[in-house]
Amino acid sequence: MADGDRALMGADALVRTLADCGVDACFANPGTSEMHLVTALDREPRIRSVLCLFEGVATGAADGYARVAGKPAMTLLHLGPGYLNGAANLHDARRAFSPVINVVGDHATYHRHLDAPLTSDIEGLTAPLSAWTGVVMNEREAGAKAAEAFAASYGPPRGNAFLLLPADSAWNEGGVMAKALKGAELRRATDETIASVAEAIRKAKKPSLLVNGDALYEPGLSALGRIAAAGVLVHADTFSPRLARGAGRYAPAKLPYFAEQAVDALAGVDLLVTAGTKHPVAFFAYPGKPSELTPEGAARASLGGPEIQVADALVRLADALGAPAQGALTPAQTHPDAVSEPLGPWQIGASLARHMPEHAILCDDAVSSGQPIAMATAGGPQHEWLGHTGGAIGQGMPMAVGAAVAAAGKRKVIALCGDGAAMYTNQALWSLAREKLDCTVIVFANRSYRILNIELARTGAGNPGPTAASMLSLDNPAIDWVKLAEAQGVQAVRCNDALDFDRQLARLLAIKGPTLIEAVI
Amino acid sequence: MADGDRALMGADALVRTLADCGVDACFANPGTSEMHLVTALDREPRIRSVLCLFEGVATGAADGYARVAGKPAMTLLHLGPGYLNGAANLHDARRAFSPVINVVGDHATYHRHLDAPLTSDIEGLTAPLSAWTGVVMNEREAGAKAAEAFAASYGPPRGNAFLLLPADSAWNEGGVMAKALKGAELRRATDETIASVAEAIRKAKKPSLLVNGDALYEPGLSALGRIAAAGVLVHADTFSPRLARGAGRYAPAKLPYFAEQAVDALAGVDLLVTAGTKHPVAFFAYPGKPSELTPEGAARASLGGPEIQVADALVRLADALGAPAQGALTPAQTHPDAVSEPLGPWQIGASLARHMPEHAILCDDAVSSGQPIAMATAGGPQHEWLGHTGGAIGQGMPMAVGAAVAAAGKRKVIALCGDGAAMYTNQALWSLAREKLDCTVIVFANRSYRILNIELARTGAGNPGPTAASMLSLDNPAIDWVKLAEAQGVQAVRCNDALDFDRQLARLLAIKGPTLIEAVI
Repeated sequence: MADGDRALMGADALVRTLADCGVDACFANPGTSEMHLVTALDREPRIRSVLCLFEGVATGAADGYARVAGKPAMTLLHLGPGYLNGAANLHDARRAFSPVINVVGDHATYHRHLDAPLTSDIEGLTAPLSAWTGVVMNEREAGAKAAEAFAASYGPPRGNAFLLLPADSAWNEGGVMAKALKGAELRRATDETIASVAEAIRKAKKPSLLVNGDALYEPGLSALGRIAAAGVLVHADTFSPRLARGAGRYAPAKLPYFAEQAVDALAGVDLLVTAGTKHPVAFFAYPGKPSELTPEGAARASLGGPEIQVADALVRLADALGAPAQGALTPAQTHPDAVSEPLGPWQIGASLARHMPEHAILCDDAVSSGQPIAMATAGGPQHEWLGHTGGAIGQGMPMAVGAAVAAAGKRKVIALCGDGAAMYTNQALWSLAREKLDCTVIVFANRSYRILNIELARTGAGNPGPTAASMLSLDNPAIDWVKLAEAQGVQAVRCNDALDFDRQLARLLAIKGPTLIEAVI
Repeated sequence: MADGDRALMGADALVRTLADCGVDACFANPGTSEMHLVTALDREPRIRSVLCLFEGVATGAADGYARVAGKPAMTLLHLGPGYLNGAANLHDARRAFSPVINVVGDHATYHRHLDAPLTSDIEGLTAPLSAWTGVVMNEREAGAKAAEAFAASYGPPRGNAFLLLPADSAWNEGGVMAKALKGAELRRATDETIASVAEAIRKAKKPSLLVNGDALYEPGLSALGRIAAAGVLVHADTFSPRLARGAGRYAPAKLPYFAEQAVDALAGVDLLVTAGTKHPVAFFAYPGKPSELTPEGAARASLGGPEIQVADALVRLADALGAPAQGALTPAQTHPDAVSEPLGPWQIGASLARHMPEHAILCDDAVSSGQPIAMATAGGPQHEWLGHTGGAIGQGMPMAVGAAVAAAGKRKVIALCGDGAAMYTNQALWSLAREKLDCTVIVFANRSYRILNIELARTGAGNPGPTAASMLSLDNPAIDWVKLAEAQGVQAVRCNDALDFDRQLARLLAIKGPTLIEAVI
C-alpha cells in the first residue's frame, strides 16, 4: 500500500491540521511513542523539523521562534520526562507570553493505566505551565484537538498549549482533519479605559507608565516616546520578550533589576499606570528590602495586561493626552576604536555596536554581563533584544536556534550567554551546526556564577567559606568553549583581549552560519 | 558577630539536622534564593557538596549515590525551574525506589504571592514525583521538617522527598534543630504470606517468580538461586536499580525488553509470583502486541512490592520450599584475546570482562548497546549494574557522579552511555573532573538514536523518509566526544578498532580519576 493510498492516521491528521493553521516549524526530540508523528512529519513538507539533542533546546527554540515569527511552532516531546526536560524553558516562554504548541507523546490509551516505567502524570506535571491542555483520546479527534491547541496558544494572552497524543491515537487509521483555526487577536483596550487613564495622568503630579509586550517594538515604541514627551515617566519592565533598540528609536528606561534601585527610579511617583504588564515586584526578596515596587500611596491604573494590544492602546493614549507627534529618539552613538586591553562586557558591547548588522536579533542569557552590553549597544545599529523573561537560565542558545529558523537567513542572530547559563543547554550548538543557522554565540567566560557572588553579598548570607566559594565558581576545571563548540560542529575562537575580540567578532559576523566566541572576561 | 556566635539560621538548622540524620553528600546547583543554604553548607563539614552545572546531573547523582550507599543524599535545586531541570532523573529515581531528599529553594513566604518571574507552583509540579512534600513555613520548623523529609525518603517504599525552603525560612535567625530520625526498614513479609506462596508454588505445574529490589544483590541472589534450583522459573525485571553479577553468582534471567519475547519467556507459566515488583507490563505499547505480560489464565501471587525486604522473604521462601542449599552459579568466563576488527558492543563487553576490576559499579545508560555488554560480562569479575529504571535517558553519567562519591575511591565506576543519552547531561563530565572521581565513561558512538530505528520498524510506522531519518540520526555533524570531554577537563580517547579499544580501556581503567572513551561502533 503506497503512502498516498493509506487511510489517514491520527498523527497525520494532527500534523496536517497544524500545517493548515500555519505551523511551519517543529523542534523535536522524539521517542518510541512518537514514531508515527515522526513519519507523519515526513509526509508534511510544509513543516521544517529540527532535531534537538535535549528537550530544553526544543522548547527554548519554540519560544525564540514565536518571539520573532509572532506565531507558534510545535515542539515534539517524549512522554513526561521529555516534557520535564523541556519545562524550564517553557516556564520562560510562559513568562514571555509566547504561543507554543507542545505535542507530547504518551503511551497508548489502553497502556496508560498499567504504570509502565515511562508512565507519569503528564497532565498533572504540565498543568502549572499550561494555558491549555488536551488529550487526543482517539484518532478521530486528532485534527480537531490540534486546531484547538493552535487556537488556544493564542489566548489571549498567548501561552503554552499542551497536546497529549497517546500512541494509538497517533497510529490508528481513521484520523479526521479539522478546519484550520485562526489565533485570536489580542484585545483592544476600551475607549473608556483610554479616557480614564488619560484623565488620571493629567491629574497626577508625577505620572508614570510601566509597559511590556508589543509596546516595545514598532509602532508601540513611537507611541511610548510621544507619551514620554508629554511628561510621563516611562519604564519598560526589566525583562521583556522583544525589545526594538538602536539609533533612531525611542528608548524607554528599564525598571532596574535590583529592588532598591527600582524604588529610587519610581521615587515621588503618584500614579503608576501599567500596560501589557502588572504592577512591579522585586525579582527576589532580600532581607529588609521591599518586594512590591509601586510607591506606597501612589494611585494605580492599568490599560490592561498581556492580553491587550498595548501598542494600539498607547497610540490612542498619546492622542488623548495631546502628546507631541514624536518623542526623543536615541542618537547614533559611535565608540572609539578598540584597543588592546583586557576584555570585559563594555568592550564586547562596543564591538557589537561597531559590527553587528542592522536588524540583528540578540538573544539574552547574559546574566551579569547583560546590562553593560545593553548600554553600549543602545545607540548602535537597530536590532531586537529577546530578553530573559522567566529567570530560568539556559535559554540563550536554544532561543537563538528558534529565532534563526524564524529569521530564515534574513537576519543575523547573536546569542549572549553567560558561561554558567550556556552550559545548561550546550546541546543547542549541535542544532545550530546541523541546521547551518546564521548565528554567532558569545559566551561570557567569567568562569563563575558571578551573579551569585553579587547576590551572596546582597542577601546578607555572609562571606563565603571554601564550600560556598566553590559552589559559585566554574573554574577548576575551566570550561574550554572552543572545544565544546567544535565538538558539536561549530567553529569557535577564544579571546581575552578587546582588540582581538573586536577583529574576531567582525570576522565571525561576516560568516553566514554558526560561530562561537569564548570571551574570557 | 563571628559565625560561632550567630544565632542559628533556618538554613543551618536544616542542614545540620540532615547531617545528624546521616546525610553526607549534597549535589547542588544553587541560585539567589539558596545563598543561605550554601553558606550553611560551609558551616557543616560532615556534608560533601558537589557542584553540578545542570540540575539533571545533581538529581541523577543523588539517585546513583542512594543505590550505592543505601541512604539518601540531598540535592539543592533553585525554585521551580531548577526542580524541572532535574525532574527527569527524579522520575528514574522514583522508579528505582531510591531515597532522595530534594531541597528546593523558594521565594520568601511573603514574596510568593507576588508572582515574580521565577515563581511557579512548585508543589503542583513536584506532586507527581513525590513520596512526600513539605514546606518550611518558618525558621523554627526548619530542623523538624528536615528530619521529617529524611525519614519520608525511606518510605517504605523509598522515594523522593521534596523539602521546599522559602528564602526567609532559610535566612531568619531562630532556627531550631530537630532530633535526628532514622529511616524506616522495609517491611518483612508475614509468615502467612510466605507459607501461602510456598503452597501455591508447590501446587503449580510451572511456577514462576519475578523479582526486583534487594533480591538482586547478596544475600537475595543466593536465595533466588536456591529457589530456581527448586524448580521455579526465575526472572528479574528487565530493569533494576542494582544487580550484582559476575562469576560465582547466581544470575537470574531478565524478562526480555520486547513484549513478544517476554511472552515467550513466560509461555506455559500457570503461576506468577512477584516480589519487590508488580506484574509485568510492556515498556511501550505496539500495535497488535500485548501490553500485559502475565500469561492469561495464570494464577497471580505476591510476596510484596517495593516496600518489602525481598531478600529476607526469598530466604524464608527457599527454606519453606525445602530448596537446595545452593543454586547454580555463573561459571567464570574468559574471552579470547582481542583482535583488530571493527568495534561493536560485543567486543566492548569482552574488553570490560577482561579488564574491569572486581566490584566495579556499572551505570547503564547504554540503550541499544546494553544487552550485548551485559551478556559479555556475565561471567566476568563480580560487579554491580545500576540499571535504567524509568526510561528517561541521560542518567548514566550523572548516576556515575553519585556512585563514585558513594564509592569514595574504593570501587571503580564505569558509565555505559549511548551517545544520544550522554548528550542529555554531558555537563556531568565537568563534575567528574572537578571532584576527580574514579570513573571511566564509555560512549557508544553509533551516531544515531539507534533504538528508535529499531522501534520505528516495530511500531509499524513505516519506512522513514528523509525527515524521519534525520530525526533519528546524530550524524551531520558527528559529535566529537574527545573534544567534549576535554572541554570539561576529562581526558579522553577515540577508538573504532576492537584491539585498540581493548588496550585503551585497560590503560584508562588503571588511571585513578575520570576518563572517557568514545567507542565508534
